[in-house]
Amino acid sequence: MQLPVPDETLRLFPVDPQVRAIASDLYDRVAHAPILSPHGHVSAELLERNEPFSNPAELLIVHDHYVTRVLHSLGLDLAELGQGDIPADPRQVWRLLCEHWHKFAGTASAYWLRQELIGIFGIHDDLGADNADATYDVIDAAIATPKFLPQALFKSFNIEALATTDDPLDSLEHHAALRAGGNLRGRVLPTFRPDSYTDPDADAFGVNIHRLLDATGEQATSFAAYLSALQSRRQYFITHGGVSTDHGVLEPFTADLDPAQAERLFQAALRGDLDPTDARLFRGHMLFQMARMSVEDGLVMTVHAGVQRNHHRPTFERFGPDTGHDIPVATEFTRNLRPLVERFGTEPNLHLVLFTVDETTFSRELAPLAGFYPSVYIGAPWWFLDAPDAIHRFRASVTETAGFYKTSGFIDDTRAYLSIPARHDTSRRLDAGFLARLVVEGRVTLAAAEQIIVALVDAIPRAVFKL
Amino acid sequence: MQLPVPDETLRLFPVDPQVRAIASDLYDRVAHAPILSPHGHVSAELLERNEPFSNPAELLIVHDHYVTRVLHSLGLDLAELGQGDIPADPRQVWRLLCEHWHKFAGTASAYWLRQELIGIFGIHDDLGADNADATYDVIDAAIATPKFLPQALFKSFNIEALATTDDPLDSLEHHAALRAGGNLRGRVLPTFRPDSYTDPDADAFGVNIHRLLDATGEQATSFAAYLSALQSRRQYFITHGGVSTDHGVLEPFTADLDPAQAERLFQAALRGDLDPTDARLFRGHMLFQMARMSVEDGLVMTVHAGVQRNHHRPTFERFGPDTGHDIPVATEFTRNLRPLVERFGTEPNLHLVLFTVDETTFSRELAPLAGFYPSVYIGAPWWFLDAPDAIHRFRASVTETAGFYKTSGFIDDTRAYLSIPARHDTSRRLDAGFLARLVVEGRVTLAAAEQIIVALVDAIPRAVFKL
Amino acid sequence: MQLPVPDETLRLFPVDPQVRAIASDLYDRVAHAPILSPHGHVSAELLERNEPFSNPAELLIVHDHYVTRVLHSLGLDLAELGQGDIPADPRQVWRLLCEHWHKFAGTASAYWLRQELIGIFGIHDDLGADNADATYDVIDAAIATPKFLPQALFKSFNIEALATTDDPLDSLEHHAALRAGGNLRGRVLPTFRPDSYTDPDADAFGVNIHRLLDATGEQATSFAAYLSALQSRRQYFITHGGVSTDHGVLEPFTADLDPAQAERLFQAALRGDLDPTDARLFRGHMLFQMARMSVEDGLVMTVHAGVQRNHHRPTFERFGPDTGHDIPVATEFTRNLRPLVERFGTEPNLHLVLFTVDETTFSRELAPLAGFYPSVYIGAPWWFLDAPDAIHRFRASVTETAGFYKTSGFIDDTRAYLSIPARHDTSRRLDAGFLARLVVEGRVTLAAAEQIIVALVDAIPRAVFKL
Repeated sequence: MQLPVPDETLRLFPVDPQVRAIASDLYDRVAHAPILSPHGHVSAELLERNEPFSNPAELLIVHDHYVTRVLHSLGLDLAELGQGDIPADPRQVWRLLCEHWHKFAGTASAYWLRQELIGIFGIHDDLGADNADATYDVIDAAIATPKFLPQALFKSFNIEALATTDDPLDSLEHHAALRAGGNLRGRVLPTFRPDSYTDPDADAFGVNIHRLLDATGEQATSFAAYLSALQSRRQYFITHGGVSTDHGVLEPFTADLDPAQAERLFQAALRGDLDPTDARLFRGHMLFQMARMSVEDGLVMTVHAGVQRNHHRPTFERFGPDTGHDIPVATEFTRNLRPLVERFGTEPNLHLVLFTVDETTFSRELAPLAGFYPSVYIGAPWWFLDAPDAIHRFRASVTETAGFYKTSGFIDDTRAYLSIPARHDTSRRLDAGFLARLVVEGRVTLAAAEQIIVALVDAIPRAVFKL
Repeated sequence: MQLPVPDETLRLFPVDPQVRAIASDLYDRVAHAPILSPHGHVSAELLERNEPFSNPAELLIVHDHYVTRVLHSLGLDLAELGQGDIPADPRQVWRLLCEHWHKFAGTASAYWLRQELIGIFGIHDDLGADNADATYDVIDAAIATPKFLPQALFKSFNIEALATTDDPLDSLEHHAALRAGGNLRGRVLPTFRPDSYTDPDADAFGVNIHRLLDATGEQATSFAAYLSALQSRRQYFITHGGVSTDHGVLEPFTADLDPAQAERLFQAALRGDLDPTDARLFRGHMLFQMARMSVEDGLVMTVHAGVQRNHHRPTFERFGPDTGHDIPVATEFTRNLRPLVERFGTEPNLHLVLFTVDETTFSRELAPLAGFYPSVYIGAPWWFLDAPDAIHRFRASVTETAGFYKTSGFIDDTRAYLSIPARHDTSRRLDAGFLARLVVEGRVTLAAAEQIIVALVDAIPRAVFKL
Repeated sequence: MQLPVPDETLRLFPVDPQVRAIASDLYDRVAHAPILSPHGHVSAELLERNEPFSNPAELLIVHDHYVTRVLHSLGLDLAELGQGDIPADPRQVWRLLCEHWHKFAGTASAYWLRQELIGIFGIHDDLGADNADATYDVIDAAIATPKFLPQALFKSFNIEALATTDDPLDSLEHHAALRAGGNLRGRVLPTFRPDSYTDPDADAFGVNIHRLLDATGEQATSFAAYLSALQSRRQYFITHGGVSTDHGVLEPFTADLDPAQAERLFQAALRGDLDPTDARLFRGHMLFQMARMSVEDGLVMTVHAGVQRNHHRPTFERFGPDTGHDIPVATEFTRNLRPLVERFGTEPNLHLVLFTVDETTFSRELAPLAGFYPSVYIGAPWWFLDAPDAIHRFRASVTETAGFYKTSGFIDDTRAYLSIPARHDTSRRLDAGFLARLVVEGRVTLAAAEQIIVALVDAIPRAVFKL
């Protein structure tokens, strides 16, 4: 399933003809490279069940809050878009997208969706009210065929490794079944995401901890038992192929507490009795402990920082989380991470990959940190920043201080399964364009650029994520 | 009065020949579109009196703190530039500008002034000490002719709507007279700017409140009466054609207080007896109340946030406000606006337009907010950011998350009447250039770009500002 | 010693052919201009002793923490790189650089080093494991020849003025000897850097103060005597050719204290008895006092703000300061500098040059401050920002508000002597490219650009630094 079609071959390359020609050559070296997706939100269950997608709206709109949030911002009610408990007529949802499609112009979602429509469904015309039903029918017919089953797509997408994101107590049965089934040429890896067990302000934190301790057979209700339980579940993930842990935090604050203080905060957290200052300390100490465990067990540690989740309470209460109103905040890494990196930042076994949606930190904090600490890597531009101009800003901001080899390689972070090839293709094109400019400006040789573009897609993510 | 002259036709377009050609075509579609100016500081009185401008210095320098601040930064005393009570010899002021003109190179003011000199006065040579008197004479002669009277210029500028900025107790007599006179083809709209009545730290806040209550016939001195008085004046503005309110705040902090607390703070504010924390709460609650009133009466709400006014007290004491030393500060929207948007962010009747001089918030906060909340719009790049490179950075920062249709359309925000066409022309050229790049990069189709450039100049500001 | 070689002539110019041609012409006007280096860290002793450099590693790696930090970030131990007390085999250090050289691609250090290798040693091939010994030998042989002695290089680099950075109690004997020797065509100027005597948290602050008072013959241990001692040492620097003071601060906080409070804080500081709030106040007041002294004695005041020094304590304890782990933090200028500029910001005798590694402040704070206050200048992009893309971002961020003439001119800030020509050449090329774009976009005339490029390299640094 070749994404670019003839008139799309130059898509996303810089406008200068000389740069564009070099970008095109560089891109050709990686256009068909296998996809390494070391962080994302596609579920193992979807892949293991391997059932046909139900309809175009479910496939491309309803579960992609990147898309529903734009429609909501244009005045549509999320309920019209199939959010919440009452299903919406999928054809009607598709029509709403088509009617508003022209207002997506220039957005990252528009770029990905257009590529999916062209590259996967052969739909080249722009969506509009006039072709809503026709395009719906094309997609609906396509997804009924065997080559659109999730596992068939996995193959045609040329995915070599796909990481899911999972609760620490997840049985990982779908991962096991996929591995046992042997139908996928690539791997599906679990990722250990313990936020609900490390943030005292998480819903039902105390209940979660008791479930964790029960599940791991810990007898005591102590901080030591709690750490031991987490380590035990990390081992479980490792035996199921996991290579990384993921941590979503409002701020990347870290703290090194002595055992007595940690125990005291833990007991108070269990009782739901921590004030904000102590809750912050506890969270910060748990991030510190996660780094310590990574030093021991080798799991790569990714931190996604700086998003105020569920900003609009009425929407959260009506439709739940991940419904498009997670809004970034200014984020501080230099001081917040200091306790962690002072202790573990030179440990060869630790790979700490930092993601941000505050691009001011790229040149100011992340590149200088990754440009000194061997354990620190700069995560690919994330979420709102996973978009063409933002990706170029990212490279321009970090490369001069940290080069290419202390960045993580591309991460799609998507729950929209069909968008995976489009996202990786976009990233490859943009990195090719960035490198081509450096070549024409006499800043890297063409030979070096040819090596770097391959490394960005292959060696670098493999090394950073221990794939 | 056609601004661009032959050798200026490609001004401000990107350098790549292919992009430039498309930019030029896109620009041609809007080059002569009527000017919609939904926010600015030209006075209705100037238009209504329709008297000749007194001299070139008064016209182009003395009342434009964008220009006087640059001259001050180069070592000139503001008194030499006609600030303060003692008038300066206008020819001498003009000479000072000409002598220092080469040091304006690259500034936004230089771009606008040059366009004004070329397009309005036919002066193509760069200003310098050697042509100071000659250019003074050209302008001086021109402004004595009828076609340079404010109302004639209004027509030749092709202004369809021009908003002023007004005190809530302003009689709006000049607006009424202009409407009654019927000499303008376009509308002159008042804007309700209540800062002096909503910020307890404003000069003479208590006196202002009593004047407000008196003017609206309120009997009580209660918070309820105060709100009622504000609503009454908003209605007065609406009956005089007003479509928006404007709020200049150091931080866009908002708070939802219960009535008892609001009453308590109001009474303390009247007594001049609020500590900084409570003053902040009161200001934040008033921003919240203004949004509530907008939901009720439909006035568009614009917020201009993040400027430390009157940074240099000695200059403020000598020359008053708006004398060039308002300096931006880092600004936070995500947390500050949350109470307001949680309550009113999905109200169809509310249009909340957010302006910033902290460009870090474009991709991090404003685009994500406007990309979810239907009520939120991203204001055009404002003040120090209303300049070519900054405008391109703005579009590149917000479009990928929020598209074009959740931005406000251009706002000139000027008190320099003659700069209006140059500013709108600049904005149109830059948006055309931005879109042209997206076309060449295969990101939007040419057909889509042709629609968007027209929408940016016409449909979008009309819709956002309810014109 | 001509830096660019034939195939390098277009290095760092923008990619568009028309812009590039103009950039090349502009650059030609300044390519051979003498180097003015008004701030840096090359030592006067090195120049005065005029001894051959010991080996290639010492010359290009060991003392340049820009280079060693990148190697450390790639997993090398600093001890392998000749840091600390145990010397490393220089040939082995050089091999490590060569083996890891491909991972420097895209970094500022790679650009400079490559230019040095090409322009100074005639080494055109990229470094790699295969040519490590050969290149080592080439450099080793070269530096044994007379034309590579420090003073010979000073001449071939065409340095007209070079500022060092010095302790206030430095005897400046090497500066005096250089001047007396008369072997240099250019000047070597000391810079007064008093941080250890103005920051109560500095190592051995109390001891430093007593040494200062003793050295200047002050009898009392009072705040007045302390100020007098500082003034006396400033005079000493002035008599040795000094033109500026330099201040490295975590935040550019300033405070105007009354004498009694200043005395109280001073005495507490001497006793090591200041809490963090008072220590901050004292530091802020000393920055204020330094400005006051500059008004009196005319020394230019440069502030380098916003770096968390010695972020990784284990490395600091093992290898000392300046070992690659100084990490920037978000920096605030608008509020912090207000007390200082309210009092001294319009003093003709004060030149306050502000350097930052937080590029968000360029458009938001520094350009508006320099665009009003005659005393304030925007320092050239510093440290992590002294790199091609960052330099273009800098010019694009500040020029539209403050023009070119309120920036400082280039500052190399280097301790890598051989990098000086490469750094200045890089800056000249980038400014030429920036100006060329403005010309093609019709924003400045070619004639104006031709004047500006010369001013940036000559008149502006001379005026700002009173050279």
